[in-house]
Order: sequence, then C-alpha cells, then structure tokens
Amino acid sequence: MAALFEGLDADPAVEVEIGDHALIQAFLDVECALTRALVHAGIAPAHAADGVQQACSKLAVDSSDIGRRATASGNPIVPLVEDLRAAAPGDAPWIHHGATSQDILDTALMLVAKRALVPITQHLARGAAAAADLAVAHRHTLQVARTLGQQALPSTFGLKAAGWSGGLRHAADRLSAIQAHQLAVQLGGPVGTLAAYTSNGLSVVTAFARELELADPGIPWHTERSRIHELAGALGSATAAAGKVATDVIWMSQSEVGEVAEAGEAGHGASSAMPHKRNPSRSVLIMAAARRTPGLVGTILAAGVHEHERAVGSWHAEWRPLLELLRLAGGVAGRVADLLACLEVDVARMRTNLDAFLADPATTRSLGAEAVRDPALLLGATQAIIDRVLAAQRTDPA
Amino acid sequence: MAALFEGLDADPAVEVEIGDHALIQAFLDVECALTRALVHAGIAPAHAADGVQQACSKLAVDSSDIGRRATASGNPIVPLVEDLRAAAPGDAPWIHHGATSQDILDTALMLVAKRALVPITQHLARGAAAAADLAVAHRHTLQVARTLGQQALPSTFGLKAAGWSGGLRHAADRLSAIQAHQLAVQLGGPVGTLAAYTSNGLSVVTAFARELELADPGIPWHTERSRIHELAGALGSATAAAGKVATDVIWMSQSEVGEVAEAGEAGHGASSAMPHKRNPSRSVLIMAAARRTPGLVGTILAAGVHEHERAVGSWHAEWRPLLELLRLAGGVAGRVADLLACLEVDVARMRTNLDAFLADPATTRSLGAEAVRDPALLLGATQAIIDRVLAAQRTDPA
Amino acid sequence: MAALFEGLDADPAVEVEIGDHALIQAFLDVECALTRALVHAGIAPAHAADGVQQACSKLAVDSSDIGRRATASGNPIVPLVEDLRAAAPGDAPWIHHGATSQDILDTALMLVAKRALVPITQHLARGAAAAADLAVAHRHTLQVARTLGQQALPSTFGLKAAGWSGGLRHAADRLSAIQAHQLAVQLGGPVGTLAAYTSNGLSVVTAFARELELADPGIPWHTERSRIHELAGALGSATAAAGKVATDVIWMSQSEVGEVAEAGEAGHGASSAMPHKRNPSRSVLIMAAARRTPGLVGTILAAGVHEHERAVGSWHAEWRPLLELLRLAGGVAGRVADLLACLEVDVARMRTNLDAFLADPATTRSLGAEAVRDPALLLGATQAIIDRVLAAQRTDPA
Amino acid sequence: MAALFEGLDADPAVEVEIGDHALIQAFLDVECALTRALVHAGIAPAHAADGVQQACSKLAVDSSDIGRRATASGNPIVPLVEDLRAAAPGDAPWIHHGATSQDILDTALMLVAKRALVPITQHLARGAAAAADLAVAHRHTLQVARTLGQQALPSTFGLKAAGWSGGLRHAADRLSAIQAHQLAVQLGGPVGTLAAYTSNGLSVVTAFARELELADPGIPWHTERSRIHELAGALGSATAAAGKVATDVIWMSQSEVGEVAEAGEAGHGASSAMPHKRNPSRSVLIMAAARRTPGLVGTILAAGVHEHERAVGSWHAEWRPLLELLRLAGGVAGRVADLLACLEVDVARMRTNLDAFLADPATTRSLGAEAVRDPALLLGATQAIIDRVLAAQRTDPA
Repeated sequence: MAALFEGLDADPAVEVEIGDHALIQAFLDVECALTRALVHAGIAPAHAADGVQQACSKLAVDSSDIGRRATASGNPIVPLVEDLRAAAPGDAPWIHHGATSQDILDTALMLVAKRALVPITQHLARGAAAAADLAVAHRHTLQVARTLGQQALPSTFGLKAAGWSGGLRHAADRLSAIQAHQLAVQLGGPVGTLAAYTSNGLSVVTAFARELELADPGIPWHTERSRIHELAGALGSATAAAGKVATDVIWMSQSEVGEVAEAGEAGHGASSAMPHKRNPSRSVLIMAAARRTPGLVGTILAAGVHEHERAVGSWHAEWRPLLELLRLAGGVAGRVADLLACLEVDVARMRTNLDAFLADPATTRSLGAEAVRDPALLLGATQAIIDRVLAAQRTDPA
Repeated sequence: MAALFEGLDADPAVEVEIGDHALIQAFLDVECALTRALVHAGIAPAHAADGVQQACSKLAVDSSDIGRRATASGNPIVPLVEDLRAAAPGDAPWIHHGATSQDILDTALMLVAKRALVPITQHLARGAAAAADLAVAHRHTLQVARTLGQQALPSTFGLKAAGWSGGLRHAADRLSAIQAHQLAVQLGGPVGTLAAYTSNGLSVVTAFARELELADPGIPWHTERSRIHELAGALGSATAAAGKVATDVIWMSQSEVGEVAEAGEAGHGASSAMPHKRNPSRSVLIMAAARRTPGLVGTILAAGVHEHERAVGSWHAEWRPLLELLRLAGGVAGRVADLLACLEVDVARMRTNLDAFLADPATTRSLGAEAVRDPALLLGATQAIIDRVLAAQRTDPA
Repeated sequence: MAALFEGLDADPAVEVEIGDHALIQAFLDVECALTRALVHAGIAPAHAADGVQQACSKLAVDSSDIGRRATASGNPIVPLVEDLRAAAPGDAPWIHHGATSQDILDTALMLVAKRALVPITQHLARGAAAAADLAVAHRHTLQVARTLGQQALPSTFGLKAAGWSGGLRHAADRLSAIQAHQLAVQLGGPVGTLAAYTSNGLSVVTAFARELELADPGIPWHTERSRIHELAGALGSATAAAGKVATDVIWMSQSEVGEVAEAGEAGHGASSAMPHKRNPSRSVLIMAAARRTPGLVGTILAAGVHEHERAVGSWHAEWRPLLELLRLAGGVAGRVADLLACLEVDVARMRTNLDAFLADPATTRSLGAEAVRDPALLLGATQAIIDRVLAAQRTDPA
Repeated sequence: MAALFEGLDADPAVEVEIGDHALIQAFLDVECALTRALVHAGIAPAHAADGVQQACSKLAVDSSDIGRRATASGNPIVPLVEDLRAAAPGDAPWIHHGATSQDILDTALMLVAKRALVPITQHLARGAAAAADLAVAHRHTLQVARTLGQQALPSTFGLKAAGWSGGLRHAADRLSAIQAHQLAVQLGGPVGTLAAYTSNGLSVVTAFARELELADPGIPWHTERSRIHELAGALGSATAAAGKVATDVIWMSQSEVGEVAEAGEAGHGASSAMPHKRNPSRSVLIMAAARRTPGLVGTILAAGVHEHERAVGSWHAEWRPLLELLRLAGGVAGRVADLLACLEVDVARMRTNLDAFLADPATTRSLGAEAVRDPALLLGATQAIIDRVLAAQRTDPA
C-alpha cells in the first residue's frame, strides 16, 4: 500500500528518516550505543564496542525478513538481535546486554523522531517565514474579514498571513523544544530495574544517552508514556497549524471568492474530468492529513495506560501511529511551506469583495459612512499585531 | 515502514487483497468494467471493451511511479488514466468516459473491501468454529467467573468459549451482510449528474454494478458516506470481538491464574531478555490492533461530512484509514482463529482456582454450604446458553 | 454545566427521554418488568408484581442522592435497589432477584435509546421530507456544482436537496431498523449464567423482553458489545448526514455565494458585535455537534473489549458517551429539520453564480459553446436521480 | 443526566469550578475585567468600572434561561451581555465594548481552567506524595515484576510505587506549567483586529490580562488553538498517569494475585448481587474515565482547524469536551489520591507470589540458583531509581 498513496501523505526529507531502512539503522545505532555505554561503564570489555560496530556496519538487514520473524516474539528487536549476535560471535554477550526489546525500540523511535523533526521543523520554519513575507508584502492589502462564513469587518491580508506565520512558528518552536528536551533514551532492562548492571545502572543510562545525544530520562519510562503523548500531541497540533493555512486558502480560492490561488508547475491541480478547473491540490492534501492526525493522537493516548512492567498491547499499539504522525506532519509541513512560497494573491479581487461588503446599506448603517469611505479607519491594532508577529519571527533562533 | 511492522499487523491472505498491486488491479478492473458498461448501454462502440481490456492486461504499472505522479492532482487515478489511454490510443475516448476520479477510486475500494472480506470473514468463522469446539469440549469444565477482576461465582469454561464464538460469529455475519448488500459501485461523473451519459446514466450505473458484482447504489453517493461508515464500524466491532478473546486469554494466562496458554511453534512468545518466559504473543498483537481500530473508525466518521459535490480533503482522508482497518481486521481475524485452534486449556488449574474461591469462608456465607460442595448447582442456564450458541453456529450458512 | 450549554446541543423532545428523570424511570420500569417476568416464569409469587409496581410508583427518587451514593459501588443501581427494597419490604426478595446491576443498567439504556429514537427518527424523517420538498420545488433550478471548492459543471439545486433527503432518509431508516431489532434486554445475572433461575433462565429473559417490548437477545451480552457499537455508529453517521446539509448551507450562504440563507425568528443568527451580520446559527451548531460525535463513537469502540465476565471500567465508560450521542443526534436532527423547513433559496443568485462560471472563456473551451448557451444540456440523469430519491421517500413507511 | 452520573466522573472541588454557576461567574468576571482594562487604557470613563462591577454583583443569572436564549445566536454570551447591559444602563456602552463573544467565552474558559487546575494539581500532587510514601515504606518489599502478564523477574513494590509517583508528579508539573504560562486572555474584537480600540488595542489586551492574572497572549488567538490543544493533551495524559495506578491496582487486586486491595468506608466496592465480593471501585471508575479522555482530546484536535476569522462550528465544538476533560481529570485525580492514601498492601502475598515464580525450575535455569536463593541480587538499580524519584518529589515546589 505504502508506495501508491505514500506520495500523497509524505515528504521526501521526512520519509527518509522514518522508513524501514531508517528504523533498522536506528535499531543498530541504539544497540551499538548501548555496547559503547557498557564499555564506558566498565561492564563490557573495550573491544566489544568496535566488534559490535563492525557487525552493525556489515550486517545486511532485510526488513521483510525481520518483519516476518517479528511475529513470533511480537516485535522486530528479537530477530534483529539474533542476527547481530550471529554477526559478532565474539562480542555476542555484550550485544543487547541487560536490555529488553522495549529499551531498544523505544530509544530507536525517539532517535527516529529526533531525526525526522529536523526536516519537519525546517519546513514549518520555512512556512512561517514565507507567511511572514506575505504579511510584510500585504500588511496594507485590504481584505474583508469573515466570521461564520459571513463578511464581517475590514482587515488586511497581511494580518491573516501574520496569523498563519505565528501558528506555524509556534508549532515549530514547540516541536523543537520537544526535540531538544523530551526525547530521551529508554533503558530499564526486562522489568525496569536495570538488573543486569547491578547498582550502577543509572550511570549506564547516562552514558547511553550521551552516546545517542538524546535526553537522560533519569529513570526508566517503560510504562510512563507522557513523552510519547506530548510528542504526539505536538505533531497533531502542528498539522492543525498547517491546516489553518490550507483551509483559509481553500475558502479564499473558491471560484466565487477568488482572492488567492495555489500556483504550481504544469499539471498541478488538474482534474481527471474537468480540464477547465484548477484545484487547490496542496491544500486539499493538507486538509486530508489534518483530518487523520487527531484520531492518531487519540489512539496513542488510548494506549497510554500500561499495566505492570510491560503492557499487553498498549506499547505495540503506539509504534505505527507515532510513525504515521511523523509522516503526516512531515507531509503537511513540506506542503504548506511550498504552498506559501508560491501563493498567488489577487489584491484587486480582495478589494472587489471588500467593496461589495461596504456597498451593502446594512454595512453603512452598522459601521457608519465614514468607515465605509475609508475602511482603514477600522483596522485597529492590525499593524501592531503584524509587527509583533514579525518581531517574533526575526528573533527566533531557528 | 510497511515491511518491518507489517507482519505484526497483517494477515497474508488479506494483505494480498489490499496491497498496492491489488489496488492497481482494482483500479484497472473498474476502468474495464466501466467501458464494458458503456458498450452495453450503447454509448461506447463494441470494440472498446476488448481494447481497454487488452490495454489493462498489458499495462505494467509501477505503483511508486503512480504514487509520485498522484501528488499533482491529489489522487492516483489521474496518472493511471493517462497511462491507460496511452496504452489504448484507439479506444482512449472510451476509457474513463464520463467518470471522475472519485468514481473509480470509491468503486475500487469497494471492490478491494469485497475481496478482502472473503478471508476476513473466513478467519472469523474459523475462529467462531474453534471457539464452538472449545464450548463443546468444556461445557462442563468448571471455572470461576470473574467480574471487575474478582472471583464471583462458578461458571464453565465452555460458557466463556461460547461467548467468544457468538461474538466472532456475529462479527462475521455482519461483515458478510455488508459485503453482500452494502458495497456498491460509485458512478456519478464529475458532479454527480452523470452528465456525459445524457438521461440514461442510471442504466450505465446498473450495468457497471453488474459487471463488478457490486451493489447498484441507485444514486451516486460521492458525498453520502454512510456505506463507508458502516463498513468501518463493522470492522472496528469485529476487532473488538477478537479482542474479547485475546483479553480473556491474557487475563487467564497470567502466571498466577494459569488457566490457558497460547500454544505455538518454537520461538512463539519468546522474550529477548527472559528465556524462562512464554508470552501470549498472538493475544498481545490482537490487543495492539484492537487499540488502534477505534481511532481509525473515528477518523473516518470525522471525515464524514463532505461539502458541495466533492469535499476538500475529507474524501482523501478516508483511503488509508479504511485500508488500515481492513489490514488490522485481517490480522486479528487470522490470529484469533489460530489462537483458538491451538489454545492450551488447563482444566485442573481452573478447578484449583475455583476451589480457592469456594474455600473462602465469605463464599460459604454468601452462597451456602450446599453450593460450595456442588458448584454445578449454581450454573443456572449455562448449558442452555451454550446450546443456543452452538445451534446458531451450526445453522449459519457461512 | 448541563443547563448553560444544553440548549446548544439538545432537542427538547429527545432531552426528555435521556435526562436524569427519564433514566431513573427506565431503571424502575426495568426492575418492575423483571419482577413481572419472574412472576410469569413462576419464580416469584403473583403479588410481587403489584407490590414492586406500587413501590416504583410512589418512590420519590432524587437523582443527586442516587448519584452521590453510586460512587461507593460504582453504579447507580445499587443505591436505587436499596431504596426500592426499602419501599416494598414485603416483596423485597423479588426485587432485582437474580439480576446484576449491569442487567438493569444495560436494559435501561436500551429502553432509553428506544424511546429517544422516536423523536430522533421523526426529526430525521421530517428533515428528509423537507429536503424532498426542496428537491421537487427546485428540480429545475440551475446551480453550478462545485468540487474541491471550485465551480465545476451545471447541476440543479433540486439534485443537491435530493442528496440531502436521501442521506437523512437513510440515517432515519438505519436507526429505525436498529430500534426495531437490535435493542435487546440484558439479563444474565452476576456472571452471565442466569444462576438464580436454575435451568429455565432463558425463558425469564424472553418474558423480560416481552414485558419491555425490547428484543430477546437469545443469550446474555454483558461482554459482547456489538449492539452498542452499532447503535453508536449509526448515531454518528446520522449526525454526518445532518452535517452534510449544514455544511452545504454554510458554504452556500457565504456572503460571496449568497445562494441560501437560514430563515428564522427575530434574533436568530445575531452577532454580539456585528449587528449587520446574519449568521447561519443552526448550521453552525449542527457542525459543532457533528465534530464531536466521531470521538464519542471512537470512545465507545475503544471501550469495546470487556475482559472476563464484567469489565473493569470499559462498561462504565460507555454510559455517558452513549447518552451524549443520543443528545447530539437529537439536537442535530431537530435542528436540521427546522433548518430545511424554512431555508431561504435565492434562485436568482444561483443563476448569477452559474452565469459567471459559464462566462469564463475556459468554460466555453471545455464545455463547448452550445452547453454554455443551454446548460440544461449537461444535466445528464439529474431528473432521474431526483425521481428515484422522491420515490424512495414516498414509499417509506416512516 | 448530570446529577445521576456526575458523582462517578467528578471531584467536588473541581466540580465547583466548572459547573454552570462557575461558568457564569467567569463570564461576569471577564466582562468586568474588560471594562476595567478599558478604563485603565483611557477608553472608558472611570465610573464604568464600578458600574459594571455592581451590575455583575447584583445580576441574578439563571443558567437555564441563558442556555435557552443562547440557541438563537449560538452562544451564551449574547444573552448574558443583554442582561448585563440592562442591569447597568448608564454604563452599557462600556460593557463588552470592542469585544466579540469569543473573546469572553475563550477567556472565561481559560479562567475556569486556571481555577479548576488548582484542585486538580493538588490532587495529583497528593497522589504523588502518597505513592512516594508507599515507595519509602516498601522500597525493600520484594514483588515479582510482570511483563505481558507473565511473572518475569524480582523487583520491589516500592519501585512500582515510585513509578506511580513519578508519573503523577510529572502530570501535576506539566499542568502547573500550563496553568502558569499558557492560559491567556483572548481579546481581538469581532475579527481579531481590535478594531474598536484604534491602534492601542494591544495595551488593552495587556491590561485585561493583568486584571485577570492570565497570560498576555501577545496577539489574538481566535483561530490559533494550540493553547487549547496543549491543555487538552496534558489533561488526557494526566488521566493516563492516574490510569496507570488504577490498572496496576486492578491487576494486583485480582483474587488470584491478591497483593493489594482498595480500602474504604462501609459499602465501598459493594456488589448488587454478590455480597462476598469487594470490588476495586475507585480503580474501576478511574479506568472508565481514562478510557473516555483520549476521544475528547482527539475531538478537540479534530476541531482544531478554524477557517477565516471565526470557524463555523469548530470553536463551539471545543467547549463541552474541554469542560468534560477538566471534569474527568478532576475525578481521577481526586480518586487516585484517595486510593493511594489508603491502599492495603499484602506484603506476605507478594512474597508468596514471588516464591511461586522462584520455585519454577525454568526460573532457576534462567536466573541461576544463587539469585533464586537471594532475589535481592537481581534488583539492580532499584534503590537508586527510588531515591531519584523521592528526590524529585522532595524538591518539587508544589
């Protein structure tokens, strides 16, 4: 299924970080880092680090084979460790030593998330910058604001674009903060006691985290899934920020409104049946993705209660929804940045629509004749709000 | 991602009906059937049917290529029709004639669902039969019933198995009914008027349905998605029926309870860190799937309101969740049938646990000494209920 | 909270069937019916029926008191049975005899659902009829059809209204079928064995069902929740059918489109800040409700796996979401019927919008000059589709 | 409905902050604060502040009446402002001046959330402290750890309790951080331009925030809902933290395990049909709530894309789910604190269960005879992990 519908959901730069190949690489990276941490802690002999690293480097892993063998144990780590130990027989005792499958899989997913968040946050930042450019360019472009679908009061297109920028910027910042501080290694051993490392297990955790440049969680979190919840929630919220742009573009690009249009290469927005149409295809795909992420966040939360020291199913239920959230967030982030970078704005049509509103006698009765003559009188703090968004955009480190 | 985690979610017999290859075949089957229907209705010339069929047969479709080209228009039908028309230049005007992408994609998904429901309902029926066998074998096997986790009253393991059988049977029957009556072709043309066929468009729809052995919907349903909702809901409910078996197996196979165990080939239930353990792996994977389907059903319902004559995103949001529901339902159906076929039942342990309950003085105070001596006195309608489930099982046409 | 936001979610005729008072009445109705069934089965003495009935009639139940006392046992049946037994000391042994709290609560919720579905299906049928009237009145009213927000091809407003009618009719029919066939009594006793009634317990179930005019489930369904899932799914799907109308009204009533408007009494659609606006308030509230039902359906499915003979929490998790679904379905059903009964249709504006589309040179290139001159040439099967919907509407028994 | 089932979901201290009365008080508090901010900004005359305050104080608001009148406009602010202006005719122009209903309702919900989070975080902190006490008391109490339902390795009950404490502490901390920094006033006027305040509108926002001791959002957030998403997600995650405790208690209090029991007043855990049982009622209700929150979080995210300057339904869809999340989080927080404060721990039974595990020959083969003789040898970093949780608990400012 993946390939046929993948292009519609995915972003290439994100996809390369979350596909089978990337997952297996992360599994191997994590196993290597664990052995290095064991060497550092004086638990494993020095040669083990190189031995395992070499085994990882030369191991040709077939994801389909691992996937098939995963069903017996219920996760792909068991067969992978078998293969890895077979590839480094001399160092086999120090491979996966003291760890449980969940240690490796949780840590690898955090590593994958960290890597995937690089292009995701870049796309979001690029989208925020493009929206800020629109805010600058159109800060004085009059546009009628609409509430509940009805023309309501004058505003400017720059203010709308500033709102988009702020939303995307906030999404990027929140994900960056999670990337920097919340993505932690998992290491607890079979039941969270770090039993194999005697009493200095927590120092192994610290070394393990340093090796992978992930956060040190302090204590194992096998059954305390708030990190996953927070990441999932932020990804869901980020798709909503992109969805806000897309939905506004869709409403504004309606034939009867005509204020913006998605620009694009030949074929973009083509209809199979109506050659005279040009569809807002990127926005449509962003909205499709934004409609799917809430259910995935809900699923991850619904699997959030893990009984005893490892849950029967709740842990397994997280894997694909989390990867799917990264995929969808990546797709919408890339797409919204592209969309904003080449959005066609019809300033004249915005003015025409505003004038139709102002020409309504009810508007004059409500707003007064002076405001109808000079709608800029009703813009209130529009420029100050735009300035504030632009200032935040400029000072942002990203 | 698919391959690595696929085995954990999927059933091979279902997978072959919902993968990329199956989807593309369904797209082609639908396009061919449409042309044949047009020939039947006298709209297309007779030679078109063969021409299109030959083009479909020889067309080598690369799902990755279609997937990549799908992004411009937002769906994979546009590039596929391009390729198909190029492969049958003489009959190109009769390919996709009068149809819109949604006609083909919706119909193909219904066809895929119909095909995937064959193994899904077979697995569920097989599971129901295996549970019925357990009900027969253990209709008098005493077991303590438990409510809210507490031992409560005597029952039999046969009654529990009968309950499983009834649940799986109901799930199979409901899906079979949907398969037989609710999966309909979609044909409305670009805006649901069947514009290209002048006034006899509904007869084209009827012929189209006959060609594909799908239901005739009467009228186009581009924006009336209750068929999809009902299918999704029934798939979600079916995973709950399998989940009921899995959760009971998990609770009964706890070390301290020990009344059942998953049997299996070597390696089944292996732990990466604890060789002394045998995990209920099939049940764990069933529970993992059952925790994911509710969010997918919710997602499909949340995308259920389609504005105007084609929705901006809601339609697109259905595709992968629906396929994922078929995948997960297939996986749990196959797995629960396997699980039930080889479940190890420890009759003695069931009696031991019951005796511990009966030996509690509070039990005697509550139930009376006579019932404690002969707990079968408290079985009420147990045998009648089992008989009723078995009778339904026997008379079922499946 | 209820009162303040209740009017926004609820329909008065439905509310009266699902409020505290109705729930307690249903609890009492169920307890009385159970005693009558026991009398009928020869288990309870004849006088018990009247005794319990009289106790129910005179019992003044304070829902807050019951609610407060419910926390100790985890459900409101335990304190209610205490009160009922105290009110009929002579017949106390035959009150709740052989039943468990879940028997009463499940049955009462089915009874409440059956009663609430009367106004819900009536509202939906009324909405379907009103939409059918619009389809008749506007079967030739030309309107431009829109896909992905873009003007696409000519159609008629009557076709759109026919689609609404078909969707609402289907929702009503599916709920009516569930009401007639799926809503069954629950009776299994503490662990589903009907232990207290010796071997003829199933005849008590049959008598119990007859007393309440609910379906006889054949066997207890304490942990087989597909009835609840199907009801929940159909309620969710019904809100989507109403949501389809609302979203179309919202898109068509935009200031720039102006093809329809919600009519209403003074104050309807008023804005707190913009007196010149008239908001599509009913449609807004329908959309708000339609956005909430999918999560409730998902919640009920997520609570769908019930371990052992009574689940720890999953059962309790169903109660309020199910009532909330009835509330929201009731609200949207009533509101959509009102909305359709007084929808203002601006035929001239529809023609103006269509003409703008036809006047686009791209339209002429695509559709041809003849069709642009006479767009009715492109209506295809529009009239036949409308006829088919109207025929279904007329033959419907509801 | 509220009263009957309310006690099962709610916590009294939270309920008083989120009920109708509290909501209306918050509406009035917000309107008063707005007028004071206008006075401060020199927009309203000084007397207006007192005038509006007095009107608020004397206004007798009937929530049912407001609720009924809310349907015309779609929200309760419109009728409330009517009443408030009527009560202060002299200052009427300065009531709600420049605001839109969403400004008041959003701000009031933030105020309500801030107030409700006081008892919620207190309960969570109390639960964390009680769990920490258990961790101290049982840091050396041996218990067999279980993964996938199977006995796996020795651990201590203190470690499990430390995990509970850490999870509840994290939930409290995250909610406290949101309470302190994320709950901001909303003020943008009808379309987010602060039109009525000319160019110094942002200073009104700042004054408004200061009056209510809520955060200054910088810019209006009518259609940027990430604050709501983050709050909802944190509430959902908090219920999972409580659910972790409840699910462990349920699994450990099974008759066959018997390691803990819920203590309680007379009647606690009573069964309507089985007087010999004692149910873990608090845990059951916590689990019931934890199964409902994910769907509510998903619903709020699904309503997260707000088109134009005010959404048609998405905004309205947030209200009750957000209040329901506060309700459920309050209920589980209070309940988990109570549960932990009086949990009965059966140390001997824990040892018995562990011994049964150790006595299994497979255990000896896997762990070695020495560890079987002295399972404390396998506790690894257990004490260090407990110490780390306790240290975090002690240094916490809450």
